[in-house]
Amino acid sequence: MVPEPCELGQLQIGYIQPVNDLGTPFLLATQVVAALRSVIGEQSAVLHEPTFSGNEWLYLKECLDSTFVSSVGKFVDRFEADLAAFTCAKHAVAVVNGTAALHIALKLAGVKSGDEVLIPALTFVATANAVTYCGGVPHFIDSEENTLGVDAEKLRDYLEHHTEQRSGQCINRITGKIIRALVPMHTFGHPVDLDRVMAVADDFNLALVEDAAESLGSYYHGRHTGTFGLMGTLSFNGNKTISTGGGGAILTDDAELARHAKHLTTTAKLPHAWEYRHDEIGYNYRLPNINAALGCAQLEQLPAMLAAKRKLFQRYQAAFATVSGIRLMEEPAQCQSNYWLQTLVLDAKYGDQRDFLLQATNDAGFMTRPAWVLMNELVPFKDFPRIDLAGAESLVQRLINIPSSSSLLQVVS
Amino acid sequence: MVPEPCELGQLQIGYIQPVNDLGTPFLLATQVVAALRSVIGEQSAVLHEPTFSGNEWLYLKECLDSTFVSSVGKFVDRFEADLAAFTCAKHAVAVVNGTAALHIALKLAGVKSGDEVLIPALTFVATANAVTYCGGVPHFIDSEENTLGVDAEKLRDYLEHHTEQRSGQCINRITGKIIRALVPMHTFGHPVDLDRVMAVADDFNLALVEDAAESLGSYYHGRHTGTFGLMGTLSFNGNKTISTGGGGAILTDDAELARHAKHLTTTAKLPHAWEYRHDEIGYNYRLPNINAALGCAQLEQLPAMLAAKRKLFQRYQAAFATVSGIRLMEEPAQCQSNYWLQTLVLDAKYGDQRDFLLQATNDAGFMTRPAWVLMNELVPFKDFPRIDLAGAESLVQRLINIPSSSSLLQVVS
Repeated sequence: MVPEPCELGQLQIGYIQPVNDLGTPFLLATQVVAALRSVIGEQSAVLHEPTFSGNEWLYLKECLDSTFVSSVGKFVDRFEADLAAFTCAKHAVAVVNGTAALHIALKLAGVKSGDEVLIPALTFVATANAVTYCGGVPHFIDSEENTLGVDAEKLRDYLEHHTEQRSGQCINRITGKIIRALVPMHTFGHPVDLDRVMAVADDFNLALVEDAAESLGSYYHGRHTGTFGLMGTLSFNGNKTISTGGGGAILTDDAELARHAKHLTTTAKLPHAWEYRHDEIGYNYRLPNINAALGCAQLEQLPAMLAAKRKLFQRYQAAFATVSGIRLMEEPAQCQSNYWLQTLVLDAKYGDQRDFLLQATNDAGFMTRPAWVLMNELVPFKDFPRIDLAGAESLVQRLINIPSSSSLLQVVS
Repeated sequence: MVPEPCELGQLQIGYIQPVNDLGTPFLLATQVVAALRSVIGEQSAVLHEPTFSGNEWLYLKECLDSTFVSSVGKFVDRFEADLAAFTCAKHAVAVVNGTAALHIALKLAGVKSGDEVLIPALTFVATANAVTYCGGVPHFIDSEENTLGVDAEKLRDYLEHHTEQRSGQCINRITGKIIRALVPMHTFGHPVDLDRVMAVADDFNLALVEDAAESLGSYYHGRHTGTFGLMGTLSFNGNKTISTGGGGAILTDDAELARHAKHLTTTAKLPHAWEYRHDEIGYNYRLPNINAALGCAQLEQLPAMLAAKRKLFQRYQAAFATVSGIRLMEEPAQCQSNYWLQTLVLDAKYGDQRDFLLQATNDAGFMTRPAWVLMNELVPFKDFPRIDLAGAESLVQRLINIPSSSSLLQVVS
């Protein structure tokens, strides 16, 4: 029997001795809380908070003094140039948030009404929502243990058995619909197995759009995530590695896609000294200058933040090394993860203890949370097509994010 | 023959004497430039710029210091409460911009795929775009001289002849589609004839959603615009009376609509300590806290800004009193306009001189612009249904917005 979390209230006031006779859940929770405390200390900690210790002030003041807080202003251009430089994408288009970036990237990837788009069931709801904004149908695919992202080999097998190619398009044999695109998401900042994912996209004629909302500062084989597909999307929400309040971006190496993305996200207005003529149905998705100003200052500090997050990972790694039944998520081989959210992965046999651990750690003042409810289990998406999701179903029961702010530790230089 | 605008370049360096032998266009342009200069002085002036002279600094600093720049933070709640207090709406829901506000208001008004929505042809493109985001079809209606907004009597006559009521729904006899909603827009801050517009909505079973993007601080018969319909929408873009960088809001007196609007604009996530469960297809439309902070400071200054804009109107009124062939747009009877954009209305016989006047005034350093290209003339909307648009077609040839910033004059108390 799992003890009530309230029994763990004592942990908050220092009784951290393992109490074996209360059974494994209590022991595990005790050890996890102790490990967290050994790294974080006695203070409570949120899951993730931004740090504003650079030029944020200076740039915001420049915005206000110039009165250019909105669509006009130099920080949007600079933020786009800085993002392109940091990621080595040829073009970056700043937008109002990561959801908007996904919406426009999918639209430009050709997703039309009725088209299916392959996305992980294990993702934040924005990935699925953005597909529906294009009139598309999310088609949920499985995730794998090693990266927490798309299981490419399982997907390949599924597509081989359930689709056919007609006129260069991938057709779902069951629904008869075009499967237009594949959207891998780099979960908690860990790159998916891009070589295999790209091979599937190529072999089945799927547009590849990377949802890199969580992976600014993450690299796959030395190249920044979000720059492998036709387009990639970033997010700078308040809980992300860097924050612009709300913000996002589209990355692409294709000049025409970048131009079109900028056009669509700025109401599709044609340039003219005074005429208001729009040649497409556009969107009010531009990033305000004031939010871009924050982004410019935040980007300057990103290398230091990434170093701090890696240091935090190492501290957690040492602290959790002796806790059996749990592994701390590490960056996949030949990858450099940003360690946006540090993640505990419970062993399969402890999958039923996730909620108890969540309650115990939150009761002890450490904000933790599970991964998202799988997309196929949400009411608005429950009837949409999906592959067997055994991998994601197992993972979602075993993932716990723990406090991950870059400010939790000072960087040791 | 209309002289080339470059001949008016002289105006910039002080040759403002009317030169009758060059004909009416030159004379009119000369007089308009002289009138503008008599109010604004020798400096150039943009069409509209925000003023940040209050607590903007203080509140932004509070945001940064608290690290609450994004979705969590007290300024969003306060901004919503302040907006409700200012407009006397029972509820205000802050969102990322005016377009998002319109999208969600129309969705909550029941606009579904294929439904028609009556909107003025003379409006900013956001009104039409938002209809399409719901899968709806904009159905363009005419505008009248007195308010620059919906011509209610012409609309009534049209609906009487072209629609029928079936099961309490207004059906377009030609297309067979439901006409679901009516969206009047308060052009440049001047309230439409709401009594007549509301009567049409009532009589034909149309949901009334007010596009009050331009009319924060405008009142119809003593009541704030945006509070007459089922919902009203506001915008705080950089060019608006107050600015949050980018921002908007939905106003409503209906508690359930307000709750639903908040839910839909915050990804439709159900409240829970850690679970991410969403029960509808939602949107990432929440206003970041940092933008709301700017909004709180701006709202505090709104009464002074409105006074300054009224004073500017009075100064323009005096300056343009002697210019024949042009009238300065005044607030409709029993209305109080915010005078967001001051507007010249050319007499019908001078409708062919609009572009010449635009060039001359811009050449002289005064930023002016025409109204928008009519929606039915834009490629994406050209095949959509419309009423006869003689009123809007005439107006659009004769409207010129002139510099309107509240900072152009100091308020005389």
